[in-house]
Amino acid sequence: MSASLEIFGITGIGEIHARDDLAGIIATAVTEHHGGLRDGDVVVVTQKIVSKAEDMLVAVDPDDPLAHKELVERETVRVLRRRGDLVISETKHGFVCANAGIDLSNVERGWAALLPEDSDRSARRIRDGLRARAGVEVAVIVSDTFGRTWRKGLTDVAIGCAGIGAIVDYRGTTDAQGRELQVTEVAIVDELAGAADLVLGKATGMPVAVIRGVDASWLRTGNVHDEIVRPPAEDLFR
Amino acid sequence: MSASLEIFGITGIGEIHARDDLAGIIATAVTEHHGGLRDGDVVVVTQKIVSKAEDMLVAVDPDDPLAHKELVERETVRVLRRRGDLVISETKHGFVCANAGIDLSNVERGWAALLPEDSDRSARRIRDGLRARAGVEVAVIVSDTFGRTWRKGLTDVAIGCAGIGAIVDYRGTTDAQGRELQVTEVAIVDELAGAADLVLGKATGMPVAVIRGVDASWLRTGNVHDEIVRPPAEDLFR
Repeated sequence: MSASLEIFGITGIGEIHARDDLAGIIATAVTEHHGGLRDGDVVVVTQKIVSKAEDMLVAVDPDDPLAHKELVERETVRVLRRRGDLVISETKHGFVCANAGIDLSNVERGWAALLPEDSDRSARRIRDGLRARAGVEVAVIVSDTFGRTWRKGLTDVAIGCAGIGAIVDYRGTTDAQGRELQVTEVAIVDELAGAADLVLGKATGMPVAVIRGVDASWLRTGNVHDEIVRPPAEDLFR
Repeated sequence: MSASLEIFGITGIGEIHARDDLAGIIATAVTEHHGGLRDGDVVVVTQKIVSKAEDMLVAVDPDDPLAHKELVERETVRVLRRRGDLVISETKHGFVCANAGIDLSNVERGWAALLPEDSDRSARRIRDGLRARAGVEVAVIVSDTFGRTWRKGLTDVAIGCAGIGAIVDYRGTTDAQGRELQVTEVAIVDELAGAADLVLGKATGMPVAVIRGVDASWLRTGNVHDEIVRPPAEDLFR
């Protein structure tokens, strides 16, 4: 566990366009406005700017009510539930979420942002770029906003990560009474993504946060796809 | 949104017993070890010590493999899925979780901790006690560890809160492009509970964290039961 954490949003990141160098933009903003990145920082980058930088915007006729729906169908490999306009579906990445993860907020009218092709790879690229530019060993999380089956409201979770384990496994450790812990696998990247959202908000256009002070043992090779995405065969609700 | 946050675990909270004055113990520990609580702090208290203080421990024969199972059935109002020893069920509080929220970790062998009868009320009592003892206006969240339907690993979420809205509603606000936001209702108490877990860990016996710096507009009357628990009629997966 971490003794204490500091979380802050990064100011000075402007509008992102296709093929922008996200790592360079983030490194510059943190240096100019926040005294620079440090070894062990966790950099949380919201999906929208990753999709923009990776040219994942697609045109959607804003006057055709079916256009967004058709796009959702195209990005869906399995529909779990429908109610009215809401579709809960599995994307080709394995995520189960509303509307195949396609959100029209914070992109220009007439456009929609698809999820990155491989958000773990996106996180690795940003991490490599930050190491090259800032000379620091940091972790990177790509976050997105998902709903929950039995709880109202949305929270940010990790859709990709690099330089940090997605899960911390306490299996084999014992509690204060010497009894083996039942709760063993904590999805720290999801808790970190949600924590970052607390300083980002939704309407502000502030798309990157830094979390400082995480336990050094968490900083290892890791990824969301293998550690977090539940395979359909293990799923009780698909 | 909050500009920046600080999160720290509270040292000096010992073993909790039935009818202990949790607010008094927390106020003393924060004063002795962390310079005291401040107005606007969010105090996150893990469910286990709330259940202990509220005398929600029940005896379970540790040598009878059916004893824990029978207890889970007793606390369940509706079973959603079973697989092997795992039961996903709805508790009388409306939570959908594994094993009716009953965990044997960090309680003495031969005992199990049930969920508090009403975790929102528990949070209000702790908040009232902190106001009376420390003279500060803080928010209180009672947290517990839940799994997720389509994601592996567990995260801490809020099962009760007081002095803070469970949800922040961005409905009617517009994004940086002037378009109305699609993502509107953020479950901030769940993001705060998960953030607190990052400094608490599971094996350490550190059961309380403080989050400092949250947006002042979040501090209002609120509760988990009405704002977060999804009624079965609105649920697509029950």
